[in-house]
Amino acid sequence: MQRIMHRYAGSASIQATLGAKRSLGARAQLGRYWGTLRFASTIPKTQKGVIFYENGGELHYKDLPVPTPKPNEILINVKYSGVCHTDLHAWKGDWDLPVKLPLVGGHEGAGVVVAKGENVTNFEIGDLAGIKWLNGSCMSCELCEQGHEPNCEHADLSGYTHDGSFQQYATADAVQAANLPKGINLAEVAPILCAGVTVYKALKTAELSPGQWVAISGAAGGLGSLAVQYAKAMGLRVLGIDGGDDKKELFHSVGGEVFIDFRKSKDLVADIQEATKGGPHGVINVSVSEAAISLSAQYVRPCGTVVLVGLPAGAFVKSDVFSHVVKSISIKGSYVGNRADTREAIDFFTRGLVKSPIKIIGLSELPKVYGLMAEGKILGRYVVDTSK
Amino acid sequence: MQRIMHRYAGSASIQATLGAKRSLGARAQLGRYWGTLRFASTIPKTQKGVIFYENGGELHYKDLPVPTPKPNEILINVKYSGVCHTDLHAWKGDWDLPVKLPLVGGHEGAGVVVAKGENVTNFEIGDLAGIKWLNGSCMSCELCEQGHEPNCEHADLSGYTHDGSFQQYATADAVQAANLPKGINLAEVAPILCAGVTVYKALKTAELSPGQWVAISGAAGGLGSLAVQYAKAMGLRVLGIDGGDDKKELFHSVGGEVFIDFRKSKDLVADIQEATKGGPHGVINVSVSEAAISLSAQYVRPCGTVVLVGLPAGAFVKSDVFSHVVKSISIKGSYVGNRADTREAIDFFTRGLVKSPIKIIGLSELPKVYGLMAEGKILGRYVVDTSK
Amino acid sequence: MQRIMHRYAGSASIQATLGAKRSLGARAQLGRYWGTLRFASTIPKTQKGVIFYENGGELHYKDLPVPTPKPNEILINVKYSGVCHTDLHAWKGDWDLPVKLPLVGGHEGAGVVVAKGENVTNFEIGDLAGIKWLNGSCMSCELCEQGHEPNCEHADLSGYTHDGSFQQYATADAVQAANLPKGINLAEVAPILCAGVTVYKALKTAELSPGQWVAISGAAGGLGSLAVQYAKAMGLRVLGIDGGDDKKELFHSVGGEVFIDFRKSKDLVADIQEATKGGPHGVINVSVSEAAISLSAQYVRPCGTVVLVGLPAGAFVKSDVFSHVVKSISIKGSYVGNRADTREAIDFFTRGLVKSPIKIIGLSELPKVYGLMAEGKILGRYVVDTSK
Amino acid sequence: MQRIMHRYAGSASIQATLGAKRSLGARAQLGRYWGTLRFASTIPKTQKGVIFYENGGELHYKDLPVPTPKPNEILINVKYSGVCHTDLHAWKGDWDLPVKLPLVGGHEGAGVVVAKGENVTNFEIGDLAGIKWLNGSCMSCELCEQGHEPNCEHADLSGYTHDGSFQQYATADAVQAANLPKGINLAEVAPILCAGVTVYKALKTAELSPGQWVAISGAAGGLGSLAVQYAKAMGLRVLGIDGGDDKKELFHSVGGEVFIDFRKSKDLVADIQEATKGGPHGVINVSVSEAAISLSAQYVRPCGTVVLVGLPAGAFVKSDVFSHVVKSISIKGSYVGNRADTREAIDFFTRGLVKSPIKIIGLSELPKVYGLMAEGKILGRYVVDTSK
Repeated sequence: MQRIMHRYAGSASIQATLGAKRSLGARAQLGRYWGTLRFASTIPKTQKGVIFYENGGELHYKDLPVPTPKPNEILINVKYSGVCHTDLHAWKGDWDLPVKLPLVGGHEGAGVVVAKGENVTNFEIGDLAGIKWLNGSCMSCELCEQGHEPNCEHADLSGYTHDGSFQQYATADAVQAANLPKGINLAEVAPILCAGVTVYKALKTAELSPGQWVAISGAAGGLGSLAVQYAKAMGLRVLGIDGGDDKKELFHSVGGEVFIDFRKSKDLVADIQEATKGGPHGVINVSVSEAAISLSAQYVRPCGTVVLVGLPAGAFVKSDVFSHVVKSISIKGSYVGNRADTREAIDFFTRGLVKSPIKIIGLSELPKVYGLMAEGKILGRYVVDTSK
Repeated sequence: MQRIMHRYAGSASIQATLGAKRSLGARAQLGRYWGTLRFASTIPKTQKGVIFYENGGELHYKDLPVPTPKPNEILINVKYSGVCHTDLHAWKGDWDLPVKLPLVGGHEGAGVVVAKGENVTNFEIGDLAGIKWLNGSCMSCELCEQGHEPNCEHADLSGYTHDGSFQQYATADAVQAANLPKGINLAEVAPILCAGVTVYKALKTAELSPGQWVAISGAAGGLGSLAVQYAKAMGLRVLGIDGGDDKKELFHSVGGEVFIDFRKSKDLVADIQEATKGGPHGVINVSVSEAAISLSAQYVRPCGTVVLVGLPAGAFVKSDVFSHVVKSISIKGSYVGNRADTREAIDFFTRGLVKSPIKIIGLSELPKVYGLMAEGKILGRYVVDTSK
Repeated sequence: MQRIMHRYAGSASIQATLGAKRSLGARAQLGRYWGTLRFASTIPKTQKGVIFYENGGELHYKDLPVPTPKPNEILINVKYSGVCHTDLHAWKGDWDLPVKLPLVGGHEGAGVVVAKGENVTNFEIGDLAGIKWLNGSCMSCELCEQGHEPNCEHADLSGYTHDGSFQQYATADAVQAANLPKGINLAEVAPILCAGVTVYKALKTAELSPGQWVAISGAAGGLGSLAVQYAKAMGLRVLGIDGGDDKKELFHSVGGEVFIDFRKSKDLVADIQEATKGGPHGVINVSVSEAAISLSAQYVRPCGTVVLVGLPAGAFVKSDVFSHVVKSISIKGSYVGNRADTREAIDFFTRGLVKSPIKIIGLSELPKVYGLMAEGKILGRYVVDTSK
Repeated sequence: MQRIMHRYAGSASIQATLGAKRSLGARAQLGRYWGTLRFASTIPKTQKGVIFYENGGELHYKDLPVPTPKPNEILINVKYSGVCHTDLHAWKGDWDLPVKLPLVGGHEGAGVVVAKGENVTNFEIGDLAGIKWLNGSCMSCELCEQGHEPNCEHADLSGYTHDGSFQQYATADAVQAANLPKGINLAEVAPILCAGVTVYKALKTAELSPGQWVAISGAAGGLGSLAVQYAKAMGLRVLGIDGGDDKKELFHSVGGEVFIDFRKSKDLVADIQEATKGGPHGVINVSVSEAAISLSAQYVRPCGTVVLVGLPAGAFVKSDVFSHVVKSISIKGSYVGNRADTREAIDFFTRGLVKSPIKIIGLSELPKVYGLMAEGKILGRYVVDTSK
């Protein structure tokens, strides 16, 4: 227990020093304080970031003040951030849940811890950290207690209700921030923090055992190709559904076993069930086709599980009650990962079992990427370099 | 292991004797053989039963030959049999799955073992046994191996593909037949064999923990009132949904905690969520209202489970993909119980924790009951006494 | 999401005010601040508590300073605190893990929130709160992420590494503190916070289903009689093992079904297996007899689970490898509950399904209770009233 | 359902024919019957096998009558059979459970179905089938109902209570016999039927998730090297413990990640915990060292699982109660696989993910192998070719 005492002693001294700085209320002071330390010599007063002031309004790449971490927060010098379709929804205000305004978006950020609040015990200055969709939750409701933190009624969301990773310095709740191992590729891990964790969580939600069949509907897209790799690393047999020979090639290149081209198949249900000798034990729907989702309830194996991930606007999943009962299938929604899911998803990436193909552009070019997304012209995953 | 040897020796001798009888091919012989025994002195050649020769055709109450058990079967002198809505569907031929013709229906039979095949080791003559929906399955496919025998592609169904319990003597696969403890009330246990097991299985499918809330949609009907009792015995808190003050009274009389009258509520979702502080953790849909089923996906608690049991003709369950994902709910079909579910459901009944209210009539009156069912005029559970 | 904003806004203002007080560093200020509020008008500078300065040293009932909550902590006006055997071990320094010195013991405290740190969002002033064994953990290691917070390497323990509930005002980590519903009996709930949660967790660890048999070894002791009640509320059938007719009577009075008197039984294994038709599916060892623990591995049903709870000094559980394998049993250690276990255990108590018989004495008499415990003369659960 | 009717019709005709033969009681008749069929033209009256008449008595390689299948059995023309240490124990009569006498041993047989009883629906003549340790169970006790068939009180064991695979023609219960896919290597799959299934079941018993660490204690032995391969195929990270550089090389050649040499390590617990950053999540004890087993309870990660597989004579597993509780570990016994485990273990082999290195010798040389086993001189897995 002396170890614990030491820790608290250590953090207490940092806390005391930090507290002294804070009581002076001056950013310059903080800079001066850290200036005496090896690893965080230059926390500036301002930084570059992309901000918008109303939903659908202009995206400004401009100077923003560097935020100060609360007692439970870390300040991350974001090096890279992935760009996710959800960022587009947040900007446009597509969902019922209102966003913070003005808002700095982004929830796939990877960088270096440069400051921390007095309560933070799990990060040291200089550690690598990741910003993810769930920035914080109440940690004390029934859902949080059971690890369903993303489902907490009081969830705080990066790049949505909390300024996110499209800036050079961002704050993050220390308990929820992802711990990234030294030496990791910060650009490539960025999309893992949301896309990777999401498909990994979906695969866990399917509750499959190694050796069983999983179908990935939309297997060659951004989420799909990550799902194929995670599934393989989990010992599953992977059937992919998508359209086109280039998709087929991509699917096999990331380790998929059987590809069904929905453009060529004359009877998808029959073809999928034959290839898997009775239907896949689980289906991960990352595609945003409403018809594809309902079809998955037909081809899944008896007692199997259909997982919903993709969010086609206004869509419903429809399932015939009689066969739902007689086949005893499950249709489960899977949202995003919790702290454990995040750690595990990153670990698979760190071990080289999952590759994350990206295109790097400068943060200043982010507004262009929003334009491309809005036009549906995005291919692959963009990652912004905050230094450009 | 000598015990095992003894058992095999024992059954081998019965087998030898039975085999000898059978090779003579005469029912009289079998009677004579058993005639030497105390407990099964009078297996007749013929018996009374209700049979039909074509779907929707006349239901004949008449003399039928007493069937001979195969090596893996027992012959049960059925004393009582419950009448289930499925019997009506089987008679009318409502489902895709064709019935055996001619057919003796019934799959809730309770009686006494009077003969057994040479391979049967788990029943002795004189034991009490129950006939249930699943009469047999292949026991060697992936589903059977995992205990999902009712979902087996080769499932053999009592009163559907195998002559059932609407006769005085019926055969049943010994492995699937229910073992009933001595002293049990054979009339009252009959509906437990299908209705009871079905709702108990549905409750298990919801994967709830003691102390959690379960909503029973259709709480005061035949299945519903059994579900309330099982839920209570499993340590769950029970909210019932049904319509009318008499239903409310019945619900509370069997142990329900909170009743929501759908005729009175102005906002069912809000009322149910308020009563359960956030929505029930699980919902059992025994009602056959399509609208009620889809509504249950709205009021269930985040990360909760909706279970489908009732089979409204041609109905679909519809769920909004966005909230299905963000709330991370599950919609699961639950069919009927396996061997373990059956044993457990009977055990709760035997211990007096579940009551099964019935109306007893003579087997000869069964055709009238079919008529009442077809007209939707059935109240409560009918059980036929095969001796009348 | 506006709700979230409101919450944060609200806590931010409290934070600001509290921050101002704190920077003045004066307890009087805090008192003055709260003095403007209805519910916390009188946080004094000093209070009564029981403290010791070295292991086994004198227990002083004396004036102590009222502690100040950190940003993540609440300050609880402790009304009652249970006295647990662990408090004796902490005082004597029996375990490898060194205690904080000087130390205020106690980890079963129940009282009222009178102040809170700026980061606290899940408690309001005036709420009822409980202090439990686990005061805090890192919340970010693999174990914490999976809800195994009590097993965290950095666990902070009330009345052990953090001053506990044997004082009138104690601090507690807000995330770990128990939320107690309004109107609860604070004296009776105190032992639930440790003893109740511990046996409830042990029952969950056994992974039993309603209707299965659980044996409680040491069924009539403090932990045992709580275990019997929780087991019953969870739908289990309860066999109790203990010695003496008074114990038998107590066991049945709290709902136990079958009692085996180890003083009378000539073959415990045979008697227990006969009473449960094959052995209990689970065994909860709350007794501190090493022999009883190893015996439980013999009488447990094949594929059943033995749970270890009681901690006889220097004891080993010994199990014969051959029968451990061929019977495929599990022996699991169960420590203390996490946040969810705590909420659930309190809920069973609140609903009246579990009674907690106590003896109330003044806090000033606590040293006498230590003496009685050391002499093994304690009968029942003592609870101290901090006002006396 | 017509499919079902066809099946029954089909088997009924076979049944009728077989029945006719049997009533004549002559093996020659059976031969003549099958003689009209393409695939099973030559079931002889006698065959070669190895039999013993008393425990430890002479092992005779001699002519034995070909057995006749019961209604629920298949007759397998055994091509190859693995030799397991259990065969030695059976011969010597080492265990409490008495063997059938005289006895033909062997429980890892692979061959071709040449005849079947009238109740058999899941095998056709010409199918490939495997004989495994569990030949049959009651299928109707609580344990069987839950898939714990090997733990059934009435378990019937190949090469122990039922004549096994050390003969050219052996009977097997059709429900328990393993279904082998066409084209499988019958010699190499033989050891999978016991050794492979056993370690696979042990890994499932540890309830690990892909990406977690498993330690194999005795990693380079026969069971161990199979365990390493199964673990890898299940997505686990594998640490192996064994002694010697050749063992290390073998371990890495089958896919192991980290090897700990118990001959070189000065602190096994520390070394294993360091290599796995906190201890393996699960440990599979295939070694027969009593000390190694108890040590595994020390190095396993908190909340982790120790699985017992190896059966050192007269050994006990000893675990310190205090740390067992505070670390909340589980010690589980794992016996042999059920039907599902068997199918899955064979599937991993069929897909080429698990290799089974064997030495093939003639059945006539089996007595020599018993001698080598008794002297502890066996290296690797022997498989007997029944044709020699």
